[in-house]
Amino acid sequence: MPERVVTACVLIIGNEILSGRTQDTNLNHIANVLGESGVRVREARVIPDIEDAIVGAVNEVRAKYDYVFTTGGIGPTHDDITADCIAKAFGVSLVIDETIAARIRGRPSEPDVMASRMRMARIPDGAQLIENATGGPQGFSIGNVYVMAGIPSVMRAMISTVRLEGGAVMQSRSVTAYLGESQVATGLEEIQERYSEVDIGSYPFMDADGYGTTLVMRGTDPATLDSVLDEIKRLIVDAGETPRNVVTE
Amino acid sequence: MPERVVTACVLIIGNEILSGRTQDTNLNHIANVLGESGVRVREARVIPDIEDAIVGAVNEVRAKYDYVFTTGGIGPTHDDITADCIAKAFGVSLVIDETIAARIRGRPSEPDVMASRMRMARIPDGAQLIENATGGPQGFSIGNVYVMAGIPSVMRAMISTVRLEGGAVMQSRSVTAYLGESQVATGLEEIQERYSEVDIGSYPFMDADGYGTTLVMRGTDPATLDSVLDEIKRLIVDAGETPRNVVTE
Repeated sequence: MPERVVTACVLIIGNEILSGRTQDTNLNHIANVLGESGVRVREARVIPDIEDAIVGAVNEVRAKYDYVFTTGGIGPTHDDITADCIAKAFGVSLVIDETIAARIRGRPSEPDVMASRMRMARIPDGAQLIENATGGPQGFSIGNVYVMAGIPSVMRAMISTVRLEGGAVMQSRSVTAYLGESQVATGLEEIQERYSEVDIGSYPFMDADGYGTTLVMRGTDPATLDSVLDEIKRLIVDAGETPRNVVTE
Repeated sequence: MPERVVTACVLIIGNEILSGRTQDTNLNHIANVLGESGVRVREARVIPDIEDAIVGAVNEVRAKYDYVFTTGGIGPTHDDITADCIAKAFGVSLVIDETIAARIRGRPSEPDVMASRMRMARIPDGAQLIENATGGPQGFSIGNVYVMAGIPSVMRAMISTVRLEGGAVMQSRSVTAYLGESQVATGLEEIQERYSEVDIGSYPFMDADGYGTTLVMRGTDPATLDSVLDEIKRLIVDAGETPRNVVTE
């Protein structure tokens, strides 16, 4: 019986990523966390803080993937429009969540500051909260869409509490050699054809010792991965090089 | 007369980014380089090394934006299918480019290695070369799509040679204060409403000195940006804090 593949899309919401001002690191963290739950990120998009762009992307990808994770745009300022856009995408209204409101009221402040912070208590009608261990306002999920903060430390606190139904967990093997990709390309292709259930990737790099290639095998069956690793190590030896830095994960 | 806004989409092609194995840094570099040419990245997507995904994304975004930049998947191994997919997206065949082929032949090698490397000489019929100052095979462009390597150092060498017709160059001002976003949210929104041509973003952070917010203004007119910066500095002072780290770019 073929195993069920559970898929996800990540939406990074924020002009600051698209302008080049900020280097996103959230996708990488989310991909690793989901991978450990047997959920595979199949696509990611970086989109601006523009209503049409967010609503359109959310509705497109939530139909296409099992899960959608968003980061960014849930703060108290005018450019934080993610909650509004998610409600619009689902065709529901925004309501004040009393649990979030209570948490916000727990840190008293001047009335106009409080009013701005209360913006963060608005969630789409029917949404569930995502805990935020930093003590700040919670994120939320609705349907298959999980809405999280953009600040990396807060996003990490949130996603660590999300429990997902995943499929078989992807495992990997990797091995590195100081040779050009083309020296193993023919052999690799031949191995890939025989092991279609394993995803074999070839990643060239340059470091102080010269040009090299890291070969990565990903799949769900450890024994098959070990066989592929053995064949690839032989390929490297046949090409006159030494397999280095074998990693099993 | 409203200035023309020139837009771009970046497609990061590679399973290794989606699996979490590799942290992408190419988008950030491309966004900064394009910004200096007056080209604004409006969307970015990370997509897997799967033909349908690549062809579909390329055809969707090349119709939607002035320029499309891809990174990844133009090496010599079986998982490098970007050139094939771009040709398919444009409905043209792949041809051997003699300039790239000559560069490849310049580094003699065994016949099967050479055959694999020749894979990199295949470009869509009618494509133009993108120079590669590292001495490796060139990238290419066809229509409004620019196809570059995934290795950051090679991608950077390639994009540095691309000349684009851009619009007015975005400039920015930023100022930081140790206050919560909500302390300036109302005032910021009011300023944003008066200066609709400026994009005002609020980016909270935490560092060793506590919680803070960086306020970023982006737009094409320096005088307007300076006015907005002055108003925002006043907002910070009115909230009882000190404007810090003013940056003009």
